[in-house]
Amino acid sequence: MWFQTSCDLAFDVIEPTPFVLMLRPRSGPQQWLAREEYRLVPSVPVSEFTDVYGNLCQRLIAPPGHFSVHTAAEVMISDRVERAPGAPFVQVQDLPDEVLSYLLPSRYCESDRFYNMATEITAGQLLGYDQVSAIEDWLRNRIKYLPGSSNYPASAIEVNNRQSGVCRDLSHLGIALCRSMSIPARMVVGYLYELEPMDMHAWFEAYVGGRWYTFDATQAGLRNGYIVIGYGRDAADVAVYNQFGLPVTITSQDIQVQRIDAQS
Amino acid sequence: MWFQTSCDLAFDVIEPTPFVLMLRPRSGPQQWLAREEYRLVPSVPVSEFTDVYGNLCQRLIAPPGHFSVHTAAEVMISDRVERAPGAPFVQVQDLPDEVLSYLLPSRYCESDRFYNMATEITAGQLLGYDQVSAIEDWLRNRIKYLPGSSNYPASAIEVNNRQSGVCRDLSHLGIALCRSMSIPARMVVGYLYELEPMDMHAWFEAYVGGRWYTFDATQAGLRNGYIVIGYGRDAADVAVYNQFGLPVTITSQDIQVQRIDAQS
Amino acid sequence: MWFQTSCDLAFDVIEPTPFVLMLRPRSGPQQWLAREEYRLVPSVPVSEFTDVYGNLCQRLIAPPGHFSVHTAAEVMISDRVERAPGAPFVQVQDLPDEVLSYLLPSRYCESDRFYNMATEITAGQLLGYDQVSAIEDWLRNRIKYLPGSSNYPASAIEVNNRQSGVCRDLSHLGIALCRSMSIPARMVVGYLYELEPMDMHAWFEAYVGGRWYTFDATQAGLRNGYIVIGYGRDAADVAVYNQFGLPVTITSQDIQVQRIDAQS
Amino acid sequence: MWFQTSCDLAFDVIEPTPFVLMLRPRSGPQQWLAREEYRLVPSVPVSEFTDVYGNLCQRLIAPPGHFSVHTAAEVMISDRVERAPGAPFVQVQDLPDEVLSYLLPSRYCESDRFYNMATEITAGQLLGYDQVSAIEDWLRNRIKYLPGSSNYPASAIEVNNRQSGVCRDLSHLGIALCRSMSIPARMVVGYLYELEPMDMHAWFEAYVGGRWYTFDATQAGLRNGYIVIGYGRDAADVAVYNQFGLPVTITSQDIQVQRIDAQS
Repeated sequence: MWFQTSCDLAFDVIEPTPFVLMLRPRSGPQQWLAREEYRLVPSVPVSEFTDVYGNLCQRLIAPPGHFSVHTAAEVMISDRVERAPGAPFVQVQDLPDEVLSYLLPSRYCESDRFYNMATEITAGQLLGYDQVSAIEDWLRNRIKYLPGSSNYPASAIEVNNRQSGVCRDLSHLGIALCRSMSIPARMVVGYLYELEPMDMHAWFEAYVGGRWYTFDATQAGLRNGYIVIGYGRDAADVAVYNQFGLPVTITSQDIQVQRIDAQS
Repeated sequence: MWFQTSCDLAFDVIEPTPFVLMLRPRSGPQQWLAREEYRLVPSVPVSEFTDVYGNLCQRLIAPPGHFSVHTAAEVMISDRVERAPGAPFVQVQDLPDEVLSYLLPSRYCESDRFYNMATEITAGQLLGYDQVSAIEDWLRNRIKYLPGSSNYPASAIEVNNRQSGVCRDLSHLGIALCRSMSIPARMVVGYLYELEPMDMHAWFEAYVGGRWYTFDATQAGLRNGYIVIGYGRDAADVAVYNQFGLPVTITSQDIQVQRIDAQS
Repeated sequence: MWFQTSCDLAFDVIEPTPFVLMLRPRSGPQQWLAREEYRLVPSVPVSEFTDVYGNLCQRLIAPPGHFSVHTAAEVMISDRVERAPGAPFVQVQDLPDEVLSYLLPSRYCESDRFYNMATEITAGQLLGYDQVSAIEDWLRNRIKYLPGSSNYPASAIEVNNRQSGVCRDLSHLGIALCRSMSIPARMVVGYLYELEPMDMHAWFEAYVGGRWYTFDATQAGLRNGYIVIGYGRDAADVAVYNQFGLPVTITSQDIQVQRIDAQS
Repeated sequence: MWFQTSCDLAFDVIEPTPFVLMLRPRSGPQQWLAREEYRLVPSVPVSEFTDVYGNLCQRLIAPPGHFSVHTAAEVMISDRVERAPGAPFVQVQDLPDEVLSYLLPSRYCESDRFYNMATEITAGQLLGYDQVSAIEDWLRNRIKYLPGSSNYPASAIEVNNRQSGVCRDLSHLGIALCRSMSIPARMVVGYLYELEPMDMHAWFEAYVGGRWYTFDATQAGLRNGYIVIGYGRDAADVAVYNQFGLPVTITSQDIQVQRIDAQS
């Protein structure tokens, strides 16, 4: 399946402002970038680096005035998101080294505080994929998904207290619950085709049965159309943009995902 | 200056238990490992990997029964810990790529919530090293250092609420305050010569004037004798040991740091 | 300065054939990728990884029949290639760790055999940039540049024997001469605007005065328009494509570099 | 099985001389470093880094006069070196990304020139492990192993011409033959228990059946007691020491490997 994605951001900037952006999807096991575009107005020098999670990050200094960022991509993804009911829990001693850090608590996923709750939610489930499915279902049924309701990430504890959140927040709680039972889990930020309302999206992945699987409590069921921009431990690692210094005003944000028949 | 360090841990283990240990100091710009020892009783297979911060981590499965870990090292460190009053703040755009992640909030350093407090504490200071010194002084004077008072890491918010903590906790608050003002800061775990009472220690480093500098609010003033075991964003990244599964009992823990005249 | 580059390759493939391609330029200190395209006909799954030099490599299996690869990019580079006559030799002990491997001999740069020759060529020069300039001049004057004359890389020894070669071969000899005097040197493959005849190009970089500088003995003088695709120790590391198994026939290769006024 | 290894090197140095040493074995899948020692006389500052192959390298400046390096280790290795007759060839498309670079030709392994010869030597063998075994046998029978006969590495072409070489040289030819048939192969330097005469040793590994296996044409048959110091593409990558500037004189070199009953 081929998709055309785009993200247009516009800012009002007061003083020269350093930005770190994460807006360039990478080709990887699950997707292939066939075309890509990254335009800045006004044009300023940019440098790019790879962070510890393998994401491409763009650094620049936005000049005072109107500043806009346009990115677009043509991406091929596989025809369906894989599910694997019954996929077994991987013993900690058998996890690949690079997966271990996704067992640790992080800024917005206080997994050290959720063991009892996770045990209750997953009672009676087969260890592994089915536990994560139970968590995803529980989130879907119990935590109210309120897209656009918040600009600041809420941590798993906060989400659990207020019983509602945006996609990012639900993911935080899902991740914290998984990690509390020694299931590695990570945050994913990206695009989702036919997301309503259209926006940047966040979901989570859990490592069971020897690989990462996609989970998303904000949708009625797991469907296709996930395009990854970045991975991290939680929202702190995968901000689409971080700016430093005096706050800038974001004046518009437009996200598009279209299905295309084949590579144009 | 040469030091001999050792760490002896003993556990009672109920079932085969996966551990990830971080007990092998590395040679680096600030220290040279001339001798090193790592003994497990009973002896079990171990594999070692390097985490994303560059720390060496040892993975093993502890068998049921008594299990003990002995590590020791002879380390050369430079004759004094460097201070640099006046060293300037580094603009975010001039930070090395690999330092940027130390600006982000992390599990126990909710730096996104401390900007106002940090501004007050550092009012009137030159930007950079002197701001961090002011934070260190403030911690030393306001937060009661209670070694051995807690087994669980407290986050910066929690430490600030309870106004006391162990070395790790004070560091969390120091790090959160630095990062809130766009000064990269990281947690360090290791040994400190003549620490009272002797134990594993934690302190923090801040990146100003183009390099990392050592800060420690638990001591009356900055002195020598810091030997690094690991770096990370906060205590979640630099646990001396992480165990998974049924909790084990730690039956003894003995830490030693001795000055030696020269390499034996 | 903005450029539009493209590379079109077409193959006749007999059996399913694994390829590793290196055709995706990366954004970095010297260039910014604003638009990029990568099209395969027929479309096949591709995975991408980063090699030890930081290059992006694409892996795929070409199906039997006609197979073509089209890549294109819009790239901004700085307005002129920097020269630095007088830039000093960097003592080995002061080289960054990651530069050290560019001192070692490699497949096509037998630097362990060129010390005497390099000493003669650079006699009387200031240590550093001027030595490399002398090597570049010597290559320009003594080794006949015969574009298109060869399909197989020639090693420095071979080039020196036959006194002629393609761009890649001259670079091998230049690199070997530099390394023999403890000046780190590396191969670069990419595009050069107004190269005659137009083709993929190869040149070399030497590390003096604390950074990498561009050298190219195939051109009358150093001019602008270098767009980097990959870095390596020599041609073995930076093949635009490597295929494995039964040899495929390359039926056409078309390279284009156009100047564009600004980002379209 | 536990071993005690040591390496003592002594040099006469004329002027301050930069060294890069590779004398610190690492714990990994095949071995565990339980004790380790690294002593320099006179003591000088050392910094350590990890190269692209994962080896630990020590950088220092040797002062004029006598300079000596003593390293020692206690290492546990598994009880026997694994063999796997019949282990299958791994198709290039199925190789892990990080293994691919071991298919390329390198300084002393001109694998691009050995395809026909490799085909003859391995005629009739099952693809994979058995091909490498046939190469190892061929080397053992045809290339005279002359320990101590040379100080300079010979490339595969040179070894094949002179039909003799030291351990390093035989490995170069073995590696080149493997790679010419798309079997990844790498150089290993380290210790071998009961090597006659005792010295640093070099052997090679080939990647078949999904992992690396040990091969050594210098011994009558594959036996136990291999302790790894470093991996690389060939001898250029794994020199126990590289020195730069005026040549130093090595005045003594003493290597020891002893079996010990258990960790002392």
